[in-house]
Parts: sequence; C-alpha cells; structure tokens
Amino acid sequence: MRKTVVTAVILLWAILAAAENGYDLWLRYRPLPAAIADGYAECIAAVHVAGESPVLKAAADELSSALEGLTGRRPAVCRDPRACCLVMGAHLEERFGGAFAAAEVEACGNEGFILRTAPFGKGMVLLVTGHTDAGVLYGVFALIRMMQTGKEITGLDLSETPDWDLRLLNHWDNPDGTVERGYAGRSLWWNREEAPEQLRKQYRDYARANASAGINGAVLNNVNASPGMLRPEAIRQYATIADVLRPYNIRVYMAVNFSSPAILGGLPGSDPLDPAVERWWKEKVEEIYAAIPDFGGFLVKANSEGQPGPQNYGRTHADGANMLARALKPRNGIVMWRAFVYEPGSEDRARQAYTEFVPLDGQFEDNVIVQVKNGPVDFQPREPFSPLFGAMQNTSLMVEFQITQEYLGFSDHLVYLAPLQKECLDSDTWCPGKGSTVARITGGAFSPGRITAIAGVANTGRDSLWCGHHFAQANWYAFGRLAWNYRLSAREIAREWLAMTFSSDPSFLEPALTLMMRSREAAVNYMTPLGLHHLMGWSHHYGPEPWTDIPGARPDWLPRYYHNASPLGIGFNRSPSGSNAVEQYCPPLREIYGDPATCPLPLLLWFHHLPWDYPLPTGNRLWDELCLRYQAGVEDCRQFQKTWDGLNRFTDPRRFAEVQAKLRIQTREAMWWRDACLLYFQTFSGLPFPAGMERPVHNLDQLKKQKFNLTHHN
Amino acid sequence: MRKTVVTAVILLWAILAAAENGYDLWLRYRPLPAAIADGYAECIAAVHVAGESPVLKAAADELSSALEGLTGRRPAVCRDPRACCLVMGAHLEERFGGAFAAAEVEACGNEGFILRTAPFGKGMVLLVTGHTDAGVLYGVFALIRMMQTGKEITGLDLSETPDWDLRLLNHWDNPDGTVERGYAGRSLWWNREEAPEQLRKQYRDYARANASAGINGAVLNNVNASPGMLRPEAIRQYATIADVLRPYNIRVYMAVNFSSPAILGGLPGSDPLDPAVERWWKEKVEEIYAAIPDFGGFLVKANSEGQPGPQNYGRTHADGANMLARALKPRNGIVMWRAFVYEPGSEDRARQAYTEFVPLDGQFEDNVIVQVKNGPVDFQPREPFSPLFGAMQNTSLMVEFQITQEYLGFSDHLVYLAPLQKECLDSDTWCPGKGSTVARITGGAFSPGRITAIAGVANTGRDSLWCGHHFAQANWYAFGRLAWNYRLSAREIAREWLAMTFSSDPSFLEPALTLMMRSREAAVNYMTPLGLHHLMGWSHHYGPEPWTDIPGARPDWLPRYYHNASPLGIGFNRSPSGSNAVEQYCPPLREIYGDPATCPLPLLLWFHHLPWDYPLPTGNRLWDELCLRYQAGVEDCRQFQKTWDGLNRFTDPRRFAEVQAKLRIQTREAMWWRDACLLYFQTFSGLPFPAGMERPVHNLDQLKKQKFNLTHHN
Repeated sequence: MRKTVVTAVILLWAILAAAENGYDLWLRYRPLPAAIADGYAECIAAVHVAGESPVLKAAADELSSALEGLTGRRPAVCRDPRACCLVMGAHLEERFGGAFAAAEVEACGNEGFILRTAPFGKGMVLLVTGHTDAGVLYGVFALIRMMQTGKEITGLDLSETPDWDLRLLNHWDNPDGTVERGYAGRSLWWNREEAPEQLRKQYRDYARANASAGINGAVLNNVNASPGMLRPEAIRQYATIADVLRPYNIRVYMAVNFSSPAILGGLPGSDPLDPAVERWWKEKVEEIYAAIPDFGGFLVKANSEGQPGPQNYGRTHADGANMLARALKPRNGIVMWRAFVYEPGSEDRARQAYTEFVPLDGQFEDNVIVQVKNGPVDFQPREPFSPLFGAMQNTSLMVEFQITQEYLGFSDHLVYLAPLQKECLDSDTWCPGKGSTVARITGGAFSPGRITAIAGVANTGRDSLWCGHHFAQANWYAFGRLAWNYRLSAREIAREWLAMTFSSDPSFLEPALTLMMRSREAAVNYMTPLGLHHLMGWSHHYGPEPWTDIPGARPDWLPRYYHNASPLGIGFNRSPSGSNAVEQYCPPLREIYGDPATCPLPLLLWFHHLPWDYPLPTGNRLWDELCLRYQAGVEDCRQFQKTWDGLNRFTDPRRFAEVQAKLRIQTREAMWWRDACLLYFQTFSGLPFPAGMERPVHNLDQLKKQKFNLTHHN
Repeated sequence: MRKTVVTAVILLWAILAAAENGYDLWLRYRPLPAAIADGYAECIAAVHVAGESPVLKAAADELSSALEGLTGRRPAVCRDPRACCLVMGAHLEERFGGAFAAAEVEACGNEGFILRTAPFGKGMVLLVTGHTDAGVLYGVFALIRMMQTGKEITGLDLSETPDWDLRLLNHWDNPDGTVERGYAGRSLWWNREEAPEQLRKQYRDYARANASAGINGAVLNNVNASPGMLRPEAIRQYATIADVLRPYNIRVYMAVNFSSPAILGGLPGSDPLDPAVERWWKEKVEEIYAAIPDFGGFLVKANSEGQPGPQNYGRTHADGANMLARALKPRNGIVMWRAFVYEPGSEDRARQAYTEFVPLDGQFEDNVIVQVKNGPVDFQPREPFSPLFGAMQNTSLMVEFQITQEYLGFSDHLVYLAPLQKECLDSDTWCPGKGSTVARITGGAFSPGRITAIAGVANTGRDSLWCGHHFAQANWYAFGRLAWNYRLSAREIAREWLAMTFSSDPSFLEPALTLMMRSREAAVNYMTPLGLHHLMGWSHHYGPEPWTDIPGARPDWLPRYYHNASPLGIGFNRSPSGSNAVEQYCPPLREIYGDPATCPLPLLLWFHHLPWDYPLPTGNRLWDELCLRYQAGVEDCRQFQKTWDGLNRFTDPRRFAEVQAKLRIQTREAMWWRDACLLYFQTFSGLPFPAGMERPVHNLDQLKKQKFNLTHHN
C-alpha cells in the first residue's frame, strides 16, 4: 500500500516535471546536447564518496541525478577511488597528497570547497573537497551548475568560500497558513491540509534549491510573530522541517514575539531585565534545542509597527536583544534584531532607525546582529542605502533585502532584483572612508571574528511554480548567489539562471539577459522614477495611489508624506533645509546628496523637493523628465513582450504562455501607473505632457474610484 | 411670478452658455474677430421681414440673435425695405423685379432659397428669398453659417434646393423615457419628470439645430413601437411637440405598431385586408390629423425581430403598407415601411431583405417609401451598400443611417460618420447601369415625381450636450447637411461644423479635420477591419466579444455567424461557392465582389472566407494584415489624443477636458478591441503576431470573463 502511494507520487511527479510547470526551478537536469553530455559523462563516469554523512549522501544523490538527467547516464558508484573519475569528501588531502596542501583545505572554513582535477594513477580524478561535508555539498552544486551551463569541467582548479556566514531566507509565514506579502500561494510551512510528512518531498526540493544557490538558513515564520510559535506543537513542526533541511546544510531560525513570556508563559510582563522573563526565555531556548540541536537562533521585530518590545518596559533595544542573546549563547544561537523602527511624528521616517539605533552602537552582545533593511524606508523600487550601514561601527549589522515583490508588482511583474541588491551592496558608505561598501561592512569589516549574515524575505509559497512568476524564481536564486559571492555581476547570475532554467542557447540568452537586466530600471521608471517612493496603494502596496487619503491614517503610511506634490513642486526635502536626513550619511555623501546639483538623478526626489520646471542635466525640466521616464517604463515593458515572444522556440509551451500572460499584465499596469501618477501630479504641475509622451488612457477620477482587487490581475 | 421664472431661466441659460457645456451645439453665436464682425454688422445693419408667419418670425429671430452674438450689434428692424440692408421673405421678385425672375423663385420649390445681393436705390440689399417661408428659413440659416465660418457675404449669389424632400431623424425613444441605442441620457420627448411646456425651450433649440442642418422631420418614438403611442394622450404629446417644431419647418411622424387595431382597438386581429382594421386605421389617422394638421405619416417596423406585421395574417409587406398608405393618402401622409427583416434560418442574413422585398417591387402605393438600412446587415462600422438599392426600380426607397453609435463605441468613441454615409450614398449600384448611385436612386431616379426621403437614427437625448460626446454632435449636423446636399464632402461639412462649434482658426481646423476625417477608418481598424463585422458584445453591442456563445441564442445574433473563424481561415463566404449573396448585386459588382482577387480589401472578409496565410496585395498575408490594421487603429487613437491636446488653446476648458477624457477611453478600448479580437483569432490562426505589432496587454481568458458594465467607462 505504502509502495503504491510512493509509486503514484513518483509518477505524478514525473508527469508534472515533463510538463515543465516550473516546479523544478533551476534544477531541471534536462538532457544536454549529446556532444557536451558525452564529455561530462566520460569525465564523471563513476563517483567515489569518501565518507558517510547525510550531507555527503545528499550531495552524492544530487550529483547522480544531475548526471543522469543531463547526460542520460547514471555514474557508477565505486568503493575504490582509484578506478573513479570523481571523488567527493572532506579532507581528501590525505589520500591525494599531491593535489593540495592541508592549509588550503583548512582555508575552506565551514562551507568553502575546492574543485580540482588531479593526476591519479594513469589518469586524472576530479576532486570535490573542503574542510567540511557542507563544503563538499556546495562544491557538488557548483560542479552541477557548471555542467548545466555548458562549462568545461576538465582541468578544473577552483575554490570558493562564501562572503557571509549566514545566508538566510526570512519567511513571513503565519500559523494560519497565510503569507504576509506572499504572492505565491499559501505557506509552505504552516498549513492544516497536509502533514509535514506529505510535504517532505517539497521541503527537500526547497532545501536542494537553497543549497544550490548557497542559502544556509531560514526563518520559517513571520517577523510579525505569533507567540504561539513557541508552543510545543509549533516547535515540533519546526523540528520536523529542520530534519528535512539539515542534510542540505540549512538551519532553521525562529521569529519570536517579545511578549511571549507574558502571553505564553503567564508572567506579569516581558521586561527583559526581569529575571523571571530571562529564565522563561532560557528554558524556552533549551526546549527548542532539545528538539532542534542545530537551531540557529531568533529573529525579532520589536517596538515596530505595533509589535511589542523592550521599550514597553522602558528598556532599550540592546537590553532586549542582549537578554535573548545570553539565553542563546550557550547553544551558539544568535539574535537577529531588526532595526526597522519608526513612529508617526515630526521626525522624517527615513531618519528614525538611525536616531534610535546609533546611540546603542557597541552595546550589543557579540551574538546579536542588527538586521537593517537595505534602504531607510521600506523595500522601495529604489532607495539609497540605509545610513545605519557605516554608522554603527561597533555592532554586527546584516542587510535585509526583500525578494518577495511587495512594492514591485507582486508576482505579476517581471522585475529581476539582483541589480537592486548589487546597487545596495556596492554602495560606498564612506564610513569611515572610501571603499566602505555595504557589502564590506556587513561582511565583517567592523566586527572581525563575529558572525556575518545577510537575509532576504522569501518569495516562495505552495504555488506550483514556487514563486508566482517564473522569473521571480530568479530572484530567489540571485539572492543566494549574491549572498555567497557578492562580486558576481547581476548579469552573470542571470545568465546562469537562464541557462539552467530555460536554455543556454546564445540566441536565447542574449535577448533574455537584456530583458532581465532592464527590468528593474523599467519598474522604477513606470512606478517611482527620479527618487519618488511609496506611491503604492494603501496597505496592499499594489498599483499606484499617489492621492490616497485615509481619514485618521498614519501620515507616514500615506504617499503624500513622501511625494509632497504641490503647485510648488514635488519630492521630499531631506537636505539641510528640510529634514536633513542627509546628515546621517558620511562626507562627502551628505554634501553630494544634499545639493540637487550633485545629487544623483535616480535619487533626486528622495532628497529634494524641487519646482516642476527645475532644469535637469538631461536638458529637460523636471516635469518633462518625469513624464518621459514613466513613458520609457511603459515602452520597456512593450519591448519585454516582444523579446519574450521572440523566445518562444526556446521554451516549453506552458512556461512560455505563463510568462507571456504576466508580461501582458505588466505592460497594462505600467500604463496604469504612468497615467495615475502623471494625471495626479499634473493637477499640481499644471503643465502639459511633453511631445514624446503617449497620452494617458485612463481618467483620474475613475482611477481614484477604482479599488484594488484581483480583477486587476487579468 | 411668471416673469421671475422666465428671468431665472434666462439667467441660468446665460450661465450655462457661458460655461460652454455643449448645449449650444453649432449655434453658439460667440463674438467673431472685430474685423470680420464689423463687416457683417455693416452689411446687415437692419433687417426687413417681408411677410408674416411663424416660420418667417423664427427665421428673423434667429438672424437677429445670430448677428447680435456674432457681431455684438442687434440689427435694426425696419418696415421700409428701402432703408434696409437685408430683406427676407418669399417671392420678393415683385418688389425687387430686377434681381431675379419669377421662374427662378419658383424653381426653389418647397424649401429652396436664393441669397442674392442686388442694387437697390443708392446702395445694395441682401435678399433672402424663395418660393416658401421655409425656403427663407433655410436661406437665413445658410447666411448665418457663412458668417459663423467667416465667409464673405457681400456680392452674394447663391441658390440651393435640397436633395431629398424628407430629411428625417428617427428617435428610438420609448414611452417610459428610455432610448433604445441611446447614449445621451433619457428621452427628449417621453418623460414624466418635466411637462412638455417646461421643455419648450429645449424643443425649440432642437428644432433650430435641425433647421440649421436642413432636417425637416422627426419620428419621435421607437420603431419597436408601443401601441400606446396611438392613445389620445400620446397623440396630445405629439401635437404639443409638433407645435413647437412647426415654425422651424419640422413635421412629426409616428412609428406605429402593426397590431394596434387588436391591442388598442379591441379588434380580433390586425389583418390589413380586414375592412374593420382598415376602418380603425382611417379613424386613427383622422384623430391624429385633427390634433396635428401637418402630421407627416407613419414609420413601420413589421415582421422583424419579433414585431407583428401583415405576415402574421398571411399578407405581404405590400398589403400592410398599402392599407396604411390609403388611410394616410387623403391627408398627404406617407408610410415609411422598413425593409430590415431577417429570420434565423439557413439563408444568409445579408440576403434576406432582398429575398423578401424584391418580389414586391411595384406593388406599393405611391405614398409608401421602403426604408432600407444602408447596409445589408445592421449599421456596422463598414458594410457594402444594401443590394435592395438598385434592385427595386419600381418602388420608392429611402436610406436609413444610424447616427447614434450602436456599433461604434456608443458616445464614448469619436467617430465622424459622414465618410461612412458618403461611402454609401456615392456607391454605384450599377443597376441599371453605371452612375446609379444610392444617392441618385433614393433621390428619385426610379420614381420621378414621387416623394423622396432619407433618415438617420438620432443620437440625441437629455444629456446636457445632447449627444453624449461633443464630437457626436457633428454626426447629427453632418447627417442633416448631407441630406440637404449629398455632394458636400465629408471634410467640407466637418470644417463647417468645427468652425461653428469650436474655432475657425486655421491652426485649429487643420489638425482637427485630420482627426475627424481619420476617425471612422480608425474605428473600422480597431473594431472590424478588412470586412469583418458584428464582433460586438451580445445585445448591448459595446466592445469586442468575437467568442460570444449564448446557449439557445439566435445564431444570426452571434459574432461567430459572421466571422466564421476556424483553423482554415476567417470571413463570411458570400461568393458563389458560399451564400452567393454577391448575386444580389448587379454586374459587374457581383463579379468584383465575388472574387477575392478583385474584391476591395475593406470588404474582403464580408464576402470571403480566406485562409490565414492568404496573400494580399499589400504584401502581407491575411493574418499579418489583420494584426497590423488593429494596431494601426490603436495608433490612430493615440494620435487623436496628441492632436486634441495640441488644440487646448482653441477650446474652452470644459469641452476640452470632456473630449480629452473620452479620447482616453477610446484609446484604451481600441487596445481592448485589438487584444480581444487578435488573441481570440490567434487561437485559430496559430500564427505569431507580426513584428510591427505591439503585443496585447490583456489575456484572453480574463477578457472572456469580463462583463460589460459602466466601469468600462472610465
């Protein structure tokens, strides 16, 4: 009976896979052209696994099925390394002494790997090694990627170590199965329809994808955390999932509600300096580690957007974070404490995290990492980097990106996010001096020896294609790849992903790459060009609502707060004559950003409120430039459609049609954005549209009446 | 009290007029540039009205207010023609003997006029005359139009007579105040909110507009006629309206329900050969004439789309029409008997009117006119002319156009219809030989001495701007002008209308003319290019629904009946290998239409079902040409928007904005049309979109789900 079910599941899986519904992600392992496949099959005709561990087994299984899929031949398994073409295992230096020095293997650290072709006997062997089995796992995935993308695998000599220790996905999944800001169906982790046992295959595939991209951790519940997550049954669920993820070197973390001691433990409060509270947490940590020995730690959103926190008891963020850190320390757990804090009030929202956290610099335990969103507001299509990076030189900081497209058209718009993430990581903070990029700072430049981390808010769900949009899978992949190696270019990553996910035919790759590389700038243009931000619809953040006014609403949740459009002009004055948020940046950035003449155009209206006829270096006045950028965004989308249509022959019918359908929505909604924003801003500018701009196809009064609902999604 | 109300009404009127809400139509009488105005004021410093009649008074009042509005000076009224600059009245030849011969005046007939400058005493007089006061009225309106459009009025010598005797609007207004296929608010004639007395001003303005355009009759109720229209109270309402229209030479006509004797008179049936039925109609006619001495006659839709008719009693259309005609004959009334008949069945709908009516040729009384829609189906964006024209050489025929845009985007789309009407009127039927155009045939070429007529289904309602769209007013005007003189070009009429309605500045006129002249072809392109037809939504006829399938619906009301799209091709085969509807046309048309190689491209799919890759003389295969035409329609709309935006400075803000808002809808809906039709047809053609075509922004499955409602109208 059990066998029948398994067979049925396998059959179903085979059918689904054949249909190319997107479930396979970038691990499709479809047959390569014979010429290439034969070379690989010859080069790796047999595999010797030197060692035994679940991680090594996972690596070996992956290699085997990859080879079988790609080359049509399953490699032989051999016990004797001499007869083998590929040997995988940690510390192979003892057996293959000439191939590498012990120090070289040691330098791989916890997760690095070496891929090296070495002479052995009369022939050559391909060695996949490292200091740990996890390193071997990453080495195997690197090797598979090379084959998927048609690279040469003879004469290899490659070693890599990751740029951040912890490379995490944050899942904003709720116990009721919903996903906050999720656009790919229900939660993978929390649902009552299927037991985790039934989902084991999907969990394993999730883990394979993460390991392949380089991700090694996941917070499985929403940062707006339910206290119920610390109940025994939730911990059991966590443990079940952790067991599936572990062979892929993925640790689980938990988002916790700061009031849990009061709510769950029945204590009178949750004051972090209350010994009873501290004791409650210690016991809870022990309970968790009893179930999950390699548990990673806590993620905390405290005193932010209504979440409880130490300030409820007159304590600081440091008091709160450190109390939890001490509870986790004995188990090598960490605390990721979010710096996403702001309150309605007179201070510019973009300044507040800095104001609140910088005074705490140096006060955090060494297993606390402050998790900072990439920009000072909230995952906008474009923001400057958060000024906290560089400003807290005595604190571990990690950057939090959003992979799910809360402000970027959900899973309806094709927006490749690696350029956004690269833009942030490569940003030079100038603190303390030139070359202090966000990547270097969060990579440990200020906290040598401390754990480093990077996080992305996941875009996954139980959607058959995981991410709602086939191209949204690229954002999951790219986040992982950048977290492993931020020096990779966005284009390089896109090329890998396209080749693995669709086709490595150059006639496919070049146009598709152009499309992907253009997509983020297109979205910026049709949504919020020139530094505009937060014009999205109230609460859901989909579509344009620059006019929104909700009686009694927090002003800092209304677009008007950000665009400040009036007959005098548009933009947020964060220069010294305004909120002076520029002062939070180190020189010379504060001067560059502070002067509209030197402020980069893409950030102009982020930092300045300028008159409609303000002359720009492009030769256009501000109003005309704004109009033309919205129009350019629309035209880019139209070009994306044509590009995609031209790639039909390289793709399977289902994924082709699904992407095509989404691109139609995107172009239609780009026009919606253009019309809504420009017609609304025109009521202030009073200026005509420039000749080069297509005219709106909507009327403002009707757009204002239109309510967001799923009918937009046709 | 009465005076106060009148003053208030006048004040309100003044305010409304100042606001340029469109109520004034083309009779705005706004001040002309001083140089021109002074010339006119000098030329017509005083007016002598030679005669006394309500019509002459209406003409004199109109001239007076036109001059006052246009020149700022009200002409003096003088009793002694010698001292006057303009003399108006019928038969002025007695007083101004040298100016024209009696025969010349006689030749004006019932409605013609002469405008002539003649020496008189020491100076010159401007004479406006004719055989009748009605002629003088039309002469006055012609003179006013000349001034409105900045023409020279010294040294005039102009005479005109209309091309059709009866130039009618058909109002499809129901007793409940609704208007079938009306897109400009409730009925002008039938409503319970306001008594006709209160509407007197609006009725008078309606009459002025009609007289100005040359229209001299109106059917005030729907052809799908309620028997209740023959009740005494309805006749009283008719009479009240007739009294207001009469001074403007407008007669009223009534649409009657053929079953009225049974329904209203309590007779056992309405058999036209039943003497009791005949008697009932005679008495009813007498009752009507007692109330409306100049009543025009009946319009009848019989045995069509569920309406009763003589066939219900085994009689022919001729039997029915003639019985009514005999009742009306003593009073000089006429019967307009519609030839719009078709039944679901095996015969091509486009053939049926011919099949049913041609055998009756020569059997109709001489006060019967058979009213034929311009095309053989139903007011499509483009149809060939109805083959009845030319085929019934012993019957009076009149053409029925639709001014209201049932199949042309209601009052949301700017579509100037004069080119459509000209296309029909100028069509050469070749029956009996070359030069037998629809205009000549309906103008009496086959029925010399009989009354001639032409009708347009009105687009008016109680909307503040009468027609729902400012540019729809042009269609009302153009119908009247063409009915008066079909030799006028569509462009010439548009120029008159634009100059009178907006501005006669050449910088305004040229772009606006280009827009208007392009608009009908644009609509054909984005709705039904290459001879496609009837792809509109079920029942309401708005928007594209080429896929519509209503279980149990009449097949000839479904788009599929007309487009016949399949993997094999698209179009209606009306060639000899198909329905052979081409045989209803005279040689050489039947051969020209019958062969796809010679059939004009604009009618290709009307007459032929062709494979998707059928090569066209344009160099494109059929599918690509279809795609590119839909795209061209969209691009035309975008150009209309830019053109209109460029005309801002010539127009008042309200009308500018209202037209602009409609043009936005039109472009958006042109894309809707393009996407719906092409995505649907692509499911059959299986061919990709050509490179020159922008890609769809909708998905077919969602378009199919979308139901027509007012939310499309933003």
